[in-house]
Amino acid sequence: MKKVYVNELKNHLGEEISFSGFVDVVRDKKWVQFVILRDSTGKVQMTVEKSVEENASMVELVSSLSHDSVIKINAKVVENEAVKLGGLELVPTSIEVVSKAEELPFDYNNLDGVNLDTRLDYRWLDIRNEKNMLIRQVESCMVQAMRNYLYENNFTEIHTPKLIGAASESGSEVFEVKYFDRKAYLAQSPQFYKQMALASGLDKVFEVAPCFRAENSNTNRHATEFTSFDLEFSYIDSYEDVMSLEEDLLIAGLTKVKEKYGDKITEVFGKEVIIPTKPFPRMAIKDLYKELHDRYNFDIPKEDVGDMNAEAEKLTYKLAQEVYNSEFMFIVDYAATKRPFYHMRDENGKLQGYDLIWRGTEITSGAQREHRYEELCKNAQEKGLGEDVKFYLQFFKYGCPPHGGFAIGVDRLTMLLLGIPSVKETQFIFRGPNRLEP
Amino acid sequence: MKKVYVNELKNHLGEEISFSGFVDVVRDKKWVQFVILRDSTGKVQMTVEKSVEENASMVELVSSLSHDSVIKINAKVVENEAVKLGGLELVPTSIEVVSKAEELPFDYNNLDGVNLDTRLDYRWLDIRNEKNMLIRQVESCMVQAMRNYLYENNFTEIHTPKLIGAASESGSEVFEVKYFDRKAYLAQSPQFYKQMALASGLDKVFEVAPCFRAENSNTNRHATEFTSFDLEFSYIDSYEDVMSLEEDLLIAGLTKVKEKYGDKITEVFGKEVIIPTKPFPRMAIKDLYKELHDRYNFDIPKEDVGDMNAEAEKLTYKLAQEVYNSEFMFIVDYAATKRPFYHMRDENGKLQGYDLIWRGTEITSGAQREHRYEELCKNAQEKGLGEDVKFYLQFFKYGCPPHGGFAIGVDRLTMLLLGIPSVKETQFIFRGPNRLEP
Repeated sequence: MKKVYVNELKNHLGEEISFSGFVDVVRDKKWVQFVILRDSTGKVQMTVEKSVEENASMVELVSSLSHDSVIKINAKVVENEAVKLGGLELVPTSIEVVSKAEELPFDYNNLDGVNLDTRLDYRWLDIRNEKNMLIRQVESCMVQAMRNYLYENNFTEIHTPKLIGAASESGSEVFEVKYFDRKAYLAQSPQFYKQMALASGLDKVFEVAPCFRAENSNTNRHATEFTSFDLEFSYIDSYEDVMSLEEDLLIAGLTKVKEKYGDKITEVFGKEVIIPTKPFPRMAIKDLYKELHDRYNFDIPKEDVGDMNAEAEKLTYKLAQEVYNSEFMFIVDYAATKRPFYHMRDENGKLQGYDLIWRGTEITSGAQREHRYEELCKNAQEKGLGEDVKFYLQFFKYGCPPHGGFAIGVDRLTMLLLGIPSVKETQFIFRGPNRLEP
Repeated sequence: MKKVYVNELKNHLGEEISFSGFVDVVRDKKWVQFVILRDSTGKVQMTVEKSVEENASMVELVSSLSHDSVIKINAKVVENEAVKLGGLELVPTSIEVVSKAEELPFDYNNLDGVNLDTRLDYRWLDIRNEKNMLIRQVESCMVQAMRNYLYENNFTEIHTPKLIGAASESGSEVFEVKYFDRKAYLAQSPQFYKQMALASGLDKVFEVAPCFRAENSNTNRHATEFTSFDLEFSYIDSYEDVMSLEEDLLIAGLTKVKEKYGDKITEVFGKEVIIPTKPFPRMAIKDLYKELHDRYNFDIPKEDVGDMNAEAEKLTYKLAQEVYNSEFMFIVDYAATKRPFYHMRDENGKLQGYDLIWRGTEITSGAQREHRYEELCKNAQEKGLGEDVKFYLQFFKYGCPPHGGFAIGVDRLTMLLLGIPSVKETQFIFRGPNRLEP
C-alpha cells in the first residue's frame, strides 16, 4: 500500500492507511506510548495504548525503538483535538522496523555546540535539522521558479561541457584533469559556450550547472565547486534589457518562494521574503562613491577605484534601504579595466555592464557582450589574452547577433535569501580546498 | 524597440516593427530584392523594391549582404498571400548590418558531404542546420517536462558534487583531478549522493547534471561527459514502484514533446513521437531468452548470461513491437552478479531491479536499493569493494528509508527520440577521447 505523507493525513481521517517515517521522539508513559514520526512534509503522533491486549507486541517493539530508526506501520487516522500536531493521531495495528538506527554522533536538533566539520562529516544527519532541510527545499523551489520563467519566455536549456581543452578565461585557478594522454581543465563558467549557442542561432539559452574554481581560499564565501544559474540572450538593444530580464527573473523566483515557503521561512529563519518591485534602483559607480563618502564617510581604496569591495557592498545595501527602500541595487559604469574583455564598451569606452547587489553582497555581474569580431579581438589583445581564447573568437566570425547575459550563484542566492552565515552550510555538500568528503 | 520574433509577426500586420535576424538567402532580381531572414522561431521574407527612390541606399546594402550576416531592420509587416513564408512580408524603412559574416567553411544546409569532425570543429555553424537546431529545442522541452512532472510530485532538486575524494563506484574509468596537494576524481554518477539525500530525510530527489567516464572508446554511443537525469525516492514497497514512476515520467515528457514539436519532428526527422500507455510490457530475462530463441533463433553468449547485449536489445525491440505493439520493454530478473552491490536482492537472492529498452537500446537501469546496513556491507564485500565505499556505507547506519531510483542519459534519450545515428551529433558539444574542442 502506498505511503501517505504527513501533509496528506487530514484527507484520510477515519481510514486505515500505510505510513512510514523516521522515529523522532518516543514518550513511553505508564499507560500509553507516544511516538512522533517524521517525513519531509512534517511530523505526526502515533499512539499505542498499553492496556489494549492486542497491542502487547507493539508495546514491546516501541519501548526498544531507537531515535531516527525508520518504521512502517498500518494505522487508523483518528481525529483528536488534544493533539497539537495537526489535531490527529495514528493508531497502529502493526509496526515494522525497516531500518534500525545506531546511536547518533550528535543531536542535530541542537547544533550550537557541534563543530562545523563534524556536521559536514555527517552531512546526512546535519540535514535532518529543520533549518537545513528547509534550505534544500527553498533552493529547489527558487531554481525551478526561475527556470520556469525562462521556459515561458522561450529560452532553451543547454548542457555545456565541463571538460575543456584550454584553461580559457584565466590561466590561474583552473583545475587540471588527466585526460588520457593529454591535459584537460574544468570549466570555471559556461560563458564561452553560452555565447557559442547564440552564434549558432539559438536565441535565448540558459544552464544550471556546476562550475569549478581552484582557489585556495578558506572563507565563508568560497567553494571550489558551486552551482551557477547562467543565461544569455540575443537581439538586445543594450545592457538595460539584461537588467530588466534579471529583475523579472528574481521577482518570479522570490514570488514563488514566498508563496510556498514564506511563512515557514519566517518561522524557522526569522527572515521575511521581500518581493522587489521593478525597476530596481540603479546608480553609476561614481555617484555611488560620492554618496558613500557623504553619508558614511567611506572612500574606496585606490586599488579598487572603478570597482567595488566588500565594505562598499555592505554600505550600498544601507544606502539602498535608506534612500530607495530596496534590498537590491544595480551598479553601472564600472571601469572597463576591471571587467572581462568580452564585456562590451560603447564608442567612448564606457562599459556596457552592471553588478547587482542584494542584501550587501554582489550576486551578479551582467553585461551586453561584444559580438563584433574585430572589436572583440582588440579587447582580448589589450588584456594580453592570446592562444587560449583564439577558439572563442572564431564564434563571432560568421555572423552573431548582439546579445547579453549574466550568471547568478545559486548557493549565494540561497545564502542571502535565508541569512545563512556560510556557503558551507548552504551547499548540499560543500567542496573546499580541505573538503572532498563525504 | 524590442525585436519581434518570426512566430509573432502575424500579430503585427500593418504595424511598424523592429526585426533582427540572420540573412538566410538573398535573391537580387531585376526589379526587386528578396531577403529571407531567420531567427530561432522561423523564417520571413524581406522585400525591397528597387524602383522606389528612397530605397536606393538599402538596395546597395542588400546587394552586398553576405550569407548569415545579422541585420537589424525597421519594417512594416505587410500581408501578402503570394508569399509562402506565413503569407506576409517585411517592407523595410531602414537596414543595419550588426554582424558581418565571413564566407562559411561549409554549407550547413547540406551536410551530407561534410566530414563530421569538420562539423564538430565548427559546431556553432553546424547547429544552424534545421535538424540540429530542432535537436536542441526538443531535448530542452523533454527535460523540462520531465522535471516539471517531478516538481508536481514533490521532488526536491539537489546539486551533488562532481569533485569527489575517492574513485567510488569502480576504480577504472575515472578521471583524476589535480586538487591542490592531493588527488580528486570526477563523479561517474550522483548515485551515492542521491541516496545520502534520502538518508537525510529528503524523501524524493532528482538532479540533471554532467557525469564523467574516462572510457577510451570511440563509438557512436560513448562520450566522456554526458548529461544524466537522475532520481531517487523513499518509502517504496518494491522496484515496481520505481518502474511505475518511470512510466509516468516518460509519458509526461513525450506528451509535452509531441504537443509542442510533434509535427515538426515528423517533418524534419520523419519520425513519429509515440506516447506509450501504462503499464509498459515487462519480461523476466529467462522468458525473454526463450522468446528470442524461439522467434529469432538468437541465443545469448555464455559470458552474457543473466544480462543483455546489443543484439539482444535490438531483438527485444522487435519482440516488443510484434507481441505488445510497444516501443518499450522492461526486463527484470537480471543476475545479481551482473549488477552493482547497492541493488537490492530478495531473500532468495533475486535482484530487485530492471532495465528499460526503448527502440532497441537500454535507456535505464533502475532498482530498489539495499537500505539495510548489514546487508549492504555484505554485498559490498562480496563484490570485493573495500575502503572506497566505506564512506557510503555510513549513510545507512543511522536510519534510512527503503528507496529506489534510476538514471536516464539525456543524450541517449534525445538520440532515440529523433533517430539520430550518433551521440556526437546529439550532444550540444560532444566530448570524447579525441575531442575536447571547441
